[in-house]
Amino acid sequence: MVLLDSYYEGNMTAQGLVIINTGHGKGKSTAAFGQALRAAGQGMKVCIIQFIKGQTNTGEALAFASAFPDRIELHLAGTGFTWQQEMETVKKAALAGWELAKEKILSDDYDLIVLDELTYLTGFDIVPEEEIISLLRKRPKRLHLVITGRDASQGLIDYADLVTEMRAIKHPFSKGVKAQKGIEF
Amino acid sequence: MVLLDSYYEGNMTAQGLVIINTGHGKGKSTAAFGQALRAAGQGMKVCIIQFIKGQTNTGEALAFASAFPDRIELHLAGTGFTWQQEMETVKKAALAGWELAKEKILSDDYDLIVLDELTYLTGFDIVPEEEIISLLRKRPKRLHLVITGRDASQGLIDYADLVTEMRAIKHPFSKGVKAQKGIEF
Repeated sequence: MVLLDSYYEGNMTAQGLVIINTGHGKGKSTAAFGQALRAAGQGMKVCIIQFIKGQTNTGEALAFASAFPDRIELHLAGTGFTWQQEMETVKKAALAGWELAKEKILSDDYDLIVLDELTYLTGFDIVPEEEIISLLRKRPKRLHLVITGRDASQGLIDYADLVTEMRAIKHPFSKGVKAQKGIEF
Repeated sequence: MVLLDSYYEGNMTAQGLVIINTGHGKGKSTAAFGQALRAAGQGMKVCIIQFIKGQTNTGEALAFASAFPDRIELHLAGTGFTWQQEMETVKKAALAGWELAKEKILSDDYDLIVLDELTYLTGFDIVPEEEIISLLRKRPKRLHLVITGRDASQGLIDYADLVTEMRAIKHPFSKGVKAQKGIEF
């Protein structure tokens, strides 16, 4: 039990972790929101920046705003990705989000920062992987980071402490079921 | 866009989904808590039953109690699994949790019920798979269920609508980092 007790001792001044939720399955962002909730429950201060996504009426946004106005900040840096949009519009919003992420990460105001869908920045060549890793290296020691998105780049995976792949075994799309409020958004 | 719009229409009276988060990686329960948060944010009523786990001071428990006392119920049906415990003690707590799950599922009082670590009930031969599936079939039409735990049985997977496997690509255990408050509990 010594090992287990020491594992569960917990220490807010310990090394902040870099956590990546990647893969093509569901649950990457949802687990990040659960992580934000858990951290806020323990009194930690959290900042969430959502890249790509631009929806303001999601369940998580409504819940965070009503339940944790002082502990969880949520920023939308996306335009909502659709094929009608010019790539330039998407890029501009993502770059503004990236500038905000730099500011928030270096501020030392937070215990946990979630960069939701960040992997698209390297995937679409909006921000080079080296620039992202260089920022992660400069972060305050206590700061935990959760990064989500499909196809995390190898350099990011190598740098991270904890990487989980969400794999779709079965998806209701294939059964013709609609996305539902409270479940998917 | 017609397909996508219709996918995102959302309808709380539509078919409740059975969602399974399984696999040996992290994020199964965390994603379930994120799901509960999202549902509560959309005004849905949620019940969470945690099998196996017996810890009351987790970040999620504290957050749910303070933020959503009227929308999210959290029940601990576990004793905290340790190797010192008699299997009988673990079984007894799990069976009490299972009785509670039956009552909650059939009550039609909830929009979403999370059965955290339920897969251990079949894994340890505490409740037969057929009994679980039979209960799922009898659930109110609107009720969404999220089931988590390693090694979900094939019958459960076949019955579910959405199944995701969380796979560990990298875990901080291997780097000698301690579990930290707000991150792992």
